Amino acid sequence: MLSIRSGTARDVSLIRVLIYEFAEYERLQALITENELLRDGFGTQPKFQILIAEWQNKPAGYALFFDCYSSFRGRGIFLEDLFVRTEFRGKKIGRALLARVAAIAQKNVCFGVMFNVLEWNRSAIEFYQSLGATFVDDWKTACLCGDAMRLVASEAA
Amino acid sequence: MLSIRSGTARDVSLIRVLIYEFAEYERLQALITENELLRDGFGTQPKFQILIAEWQNKPAGYALFFDCYSSFRGRGIFLEDLFVRTEFRGKKIGRALLARVAAIAQKNVCFGVMFNVLEWNRSAIEFYQSLGATFVDDWKTACLCGDAMRLVASEAA
Repeated sequence: MLSIRSGTARDVSLIRVLIYEFAEYERLQALITENELLRDGFGTQPKFQILIAEWQNKPAGYALFFDCYSSFRGRGIFLEDLFVRTEFRGKKIGRALLARVAAIAQKNVCFGVMFNVLEWNRSAIEFYQSLGATFVDDWKTACLCGDAMRLVASEAA
Repeated sequence: MLSIRSGTARDVSLIRVLIYEFAEYERLQALITENELLRDGFGTQPKFQILIAEWQNKPAGYALFFDCYSSFRGRGIFLEDLFVRTEFRGKKIGRALLARVAAIAQKNVCFGVMFNVLEWNRSAIEFYQSLGATFVDDWKTACLCGDAMRLVASEAA
């Protein structure tokens, strides 16, 4: 049996574990701490929302997202992470999490749910395409990060 | 002389004009209305922030951005639009706007400023690379939009 619920401050240890599992799956490095997740997700001005999926009361996956904005199309939701643990795959849990996020977006009168997919992750790309997602092939994503950000910031009048 | 200020509710007509000029430059279609900009930018829970650049008291460009979140790296800013009107190019106005956004990101202890660039826009890509921005080449950006979003949302339990 699947149930989906909103994550709370009491879930930060679990959320951190899930995020680090997702980072390993994506072959990327996570640096986030429980304290940061607590402050950023469950303070007075939350920077993200999280849904936790449980299969027979065991944590099976999560969706982490936040409000985004298109100056051309208005309100949107950016789905940062959608992850189902390996042992819980094939039970349509990812689809159920995505449906819940889409329902929240629809309720908030959003134009859509935006997300990034790693180019090598064919199964994810095919999954999203089967749901009617459109891929924006002529955008490059970039980051002015860390030292580069600080250097540019130092020019601010 | 350049000055940069935060946009207010009194600027929505101007903001709409600037956004539609930017959309034309990007060969994309804007659909946003003044009422939506007023509600989403200047209500009790703003969905975006905007900086307006003025050159000799004439509106010359803008930067529109919002908070984003990386589960791996924490707080970030997503720079949705950075635009300088054609007749005001070559005065380092874009760079000054970006510096101001970077300074806000640094003050908020963000890992960086994320943004998208259109692949054909070589001059923008070179501009950002010269500032030390890193390009994420293995991500595809996608949207579950409009009818596709509503169809998936209808599956939500």
